[in-house]
Amino acid sequence: MNRVSQAYQRIVDVQRPEIWIDLRPEEDVQREFAEARGPLAGKLVAVKGNIDVLGLPTTAGCPAYTYQPTQDATAVRRLRAAGAVVIGTTNMDQFATGLVGTRSPYGAVRNSVDPARVSGGSSSGSAVAVALGIVDIALGTDTAGSGRIPAAFNGIVGLKPTYGLIPTDGVVPACRSLDCVSIFARTVTEAEQALACLSTQPAAPVPTLPYRLGVPTELGDLAPGWAEAFTKAASRFPAELVPVDLTPFLAAARLLYEGAFVAERYAAVGEFIDAHPSDVDPTVRAIIAGARDIPAYRLFRDQEELRRLSEPAMAELDRVDALLLPTTVEHPTIEAVAADPVGVNARLGRFTNFANLLGLAALAVPAGAVDGLPFGIMLVGDAHTDHTLATIAKSLTSTARIAVVGAHLTGQPLNHELVARGGVLVRTTTTAEQYRLYALDTVPPKPGLVRDTDGAAIEAEVWELPTDSFGDFVAALPAPMAIGKVELADGSWVPGFTCERHALDGAKDITSFGGWRAYLGG
Amino acid sequence: MNRVSQAYQRIVDVQRPEIWIDLRPEEDVQREFAEARGPLAGKLVAVKGNIDVLGLPTTAGCPAYTYQPTQDATAVRRLRAAGAVVIGTTNMDQFATGLVGTRSPYGAVRNSVDPARVSGGSSSGSAVAVALGIVDIALGTDTAGSGRIPAAFNGIVGLKPTYGLIPTDGVVPACRSLDCVSIFARTVTEAEQALACLSTQPAAPVPTLPYRLGVPTELGDLAPGWAEAFTKAASRFPAELVPVDLTPFLAAARLLYEGAFVAERYAAVGEFIDAHPSDVDPTVRAIIAGARDIPAYRLFRDQEELRRLSEPAMAELDRVDALLLPTTVEHPTIEAVAADPVGVNARLGRFTNFANLLGLAALAVPAGAVDGLPFGIMLVGDAHTDHTLATIAKSLTSTARIAVVGAHLTGQPLNHELVARGGVLVRTTTTAEQYRLYALDTVPPKPGLVRDTDGAAIEAEVWELPTDSFGDFVAALPAPMAIGKVELADGSWVPGFTCERHALDGAKDITSFGGWRAYLGG
Repeated sequence: MNRVSQAYQRIVDVQRPEIWIDLRPEEDVQREFAEARGPLAGKLVAVKGNIDVLGLPTTAGCPAYTYQPTQDATAVRRLRAAGAVVIGTTNMDQFATGLVGTRSPYGAVRNSVDPARVSGGSSSGSAVAVALGIVDIALGTDTAGSGRIPAAFNGIVGLKPTYGLIPTDGVVPACRSLDCVSIFARTVTEAEQALACLSTQPAAPVPTLPYRLGVPTELGDLAPGWAEAFTKAASRFPAELVPVDLTPFLAAARLLYEGAFVAERYAAVGEFIDAHPSDVDPTVRAIIAGARDIPAYRLFRDQEELRRLSEPAMAELDRVDALLLPTTVEHPTIEAVAADPVGVNARLGRFTNFANLLGLAALAVPAGAVDGLPFGIMLVGDAHTDHTLATIAKSLTSTARIAVVGAHLTGQPLNHELVARGGVLVRTTTTAEQYRLYALDTVPPKPGLVRDTDGAAIEAEVWELPTDSFGDFVAALPAPMAIGKVELADGSWVPGFTCERHALDGAKDITSFGGWRAYLGG
Repeated sequence: MNRVSQAYQRIVDVQRPEIWIDLRPEEDVQREFAEARGPLAGKLVAVKGNIDVLGLPTTAGCPAYTYQPTQDATAVRRLRAAGAVVIGTTNMDQFATGLVGTRSPYGAVRNSVDPARVSGGSSSGSAVAVALGIVDIALGTDTAGSGRIPAAFNGIVGLKPTYGLIPTDGVVPACRSLDCVSIFARTVTEAEQALACLSTQPAAPVPTLPYRLGVPTELGDLAPGWAEAFTKAASRFPAELVPVDLTPFLAAARLLYEGAFVAERYAAVGEFIDAHPSDVDPTVRAIIAGARDIPAYRLFRDQEELRRLSEPAMAELDRVDALLLPTTVEHPTIEAVAADPVGVNARLGRFTNFANLLGLAALAVPAGAVDGLPFGIMLVGDAHTDHTLATIAKSLTSTARIAVVGAHLTGQPLNHELVARGGVLVRTTTTAEQYRLYALDTVPPKPGLVRDTDGAAIEAEVWELPTDSFGDFVAALPAPMAIGKVELADGSWVPGFTCERHALDGAKDITSFGGWRAYLGG
């Protein structure tokens, strides 16, 4: 079962049909996958429904708005040119108007961890497709936080690059002067790889250690346990934490929906909405149609106010390498959003709304869990600090490597456990020639690897996971599996699968096949 | 009679009371003038009525709007700190809304050369005060051409610097995101001196000769003789003339009044106008109040359209050192403007309206005359090309020096003839010791300078004028005065005053006084 088959199987297994607006036929994807070349070859990609993918309709989450693009958006074209393969377009808050993921006639997108909770939006389907390990990378868009809040709610990475870094042609605009194509991935490294293919941005100088991270003197109301989780996450950076005054940033954030800037959404799709009122989500319609009569002179005043606020905001930013913030303030249930769709949505954008208005770059990264749900933090820096933010984010995440030889190999039934935890395949190799492999009596079937001087080299893959995820993975392993140290062909020792001795009683010795896949294939 | 007295006498002589909104008492100005130190010491300045001058009311051309500023605008403070002395605030198109100079309850400002024609606006009084030699430098503001069109109509220099170069605090806004404080002077050199004191802009690299000047392939309708005058002026630059396509520039220009940008004027003073309809000029009221209901979504579309137009415009600009354009298209009479106040005004802005929208710098300079009226051209460059534009402009203007010893000395009754022609005092010196001075029987009284081996050193000033102006000055001289060559104390020979021999018959020899001023003082 190769990566593509595994992805399509996973789509069936996870039973989250609301993730997708249009999915490509598996055979088309297989054909493209086989021919793909480039730095992203082997990667599967999902694309938010407001970004043109040649061959699929562009919906922006609104069936009546649908059109057939005549070419890929530049962002999609660049991913494909780098070898990535698009498998489909994803559900979204209609016209990218929302941070919840519920404002769609294609269904509310349920959270990847807790289906009663929102996925976050507007790039809801893209985020969940990555979080559930179906795809490796997904494109979203981010105008007010749509590329970051779903990352936080699903425990993945969400990069909102500097405005203009990734072209937005072929993207249905939300607010054209603010819209950014955003990147979801399970690791910062993968998000950076994708950004490198999507933009021509030169590598920026990286700040020196210890970093200087600006932490707000005042966070405001957060969900129970979130302030503590934020403080804990902040303490893990190799950084000096500098208290910063968030007042001008938060005031700028409020301008996005409480002022005249929302009229840019009417400029984008207002006449369509006026002409098709019953085809549009009522909350989205109320927001966009309500912006029709906002006068231009108020917009000039808000733009002036934004310039005024920008000065103290930039002065705070100049004192640090990046701001460090919680990505959002709470994780609502789908029911809570239905009860108060505008109010809850507005609260979620507290820390995300200002970045686009102020021309900043932002990177949302997972930072553990609170009450079993992902908790996310965000680094925010001036324009063109994208790589700086990634470097700082990676300093948070220590990683561990693990050698796998059986059901966790690429394409095998448990591989998603690695992928969903942010695992990245580092290399394919073999063990040293001192191992024997046995077929165990487990469900699903797994092999047992045993060190034996009279052995052979067994096929292995080395995966890298965030240390947190690795611990979580080990903790969840069922008996008789265990993690010990395995010697690889190059003589190095890495953590890897072994098994309890009792499981080997009566197990079939399959060493002669040279590996689990060869045995299954035989 | 010193410079201050001369200015106040000139104010009386020219009988143009409409230039001024508030004039400071001469004795206050004299006191300040005597104490002034700095690079602009000796210079008198007029300030447009929408710029705060401590001690004078700020009116913006609207008596009902008047307030008493509590401090100087930064631009005024910097001029004063450099030694310039402000003599008063000048008339303007109300709320800086106009390019004509007639939209003011303080009276239509008549052109300095032909009182039946408009002065141009909105910085009308400032331009005419410079053109008539009352002040050396004047501050205007420029949002759509208000600092350049009056320069063209009055044969002086008008510099609209790069946006933000001169702070606009203490300026009543027209369009806050576009407004620039502008500089009027009789020569480019003086405008540059003023800019150096008004901003902290470092000197920019100067393009190499021959310059590359972009000349439109298509100019559109111009007043009779103007196209020929433009072609002639263009040919006088040491430059290669590069045909450029003005289409995107002109399309951007039209956005300023035909689109949503005009709503920024409502943002500035709209509520005042709504509350005081009868106190506001009807044309100005119609323009600004009419912008109240322009929707914000249209502004977003216009801002997007402007960004779209900016690309080809900048591509054209990148091919040259600067654009070269006529400053405006015709010179209307006051009567013609009264008959069609909006239509004429709109035509005048064809070549000026785009500079502020596109973030460009512009410099209007005199380029001869058509039918006895000043004709002006304009250099336009990217942001921060202010000094480049000045350098190119100066290459147009050859200058001549003249030594004066009598009624044209600083503070003397005919000095304004030099000042009004763009003359700048280069230095104060004496003639070589081979001259005798006689008091002639002329009105006003003048001396006659005669070369004589049995002579003495006579007080002299050396003035520099544009060659055109110098020719004009010589041509206008009344008998018995003549321009010959005079030897100065340093042995150099410069053009200077002499007189016909017959005028000396019976004239009193005043050589022993050492100069005309000493003779008058004795």
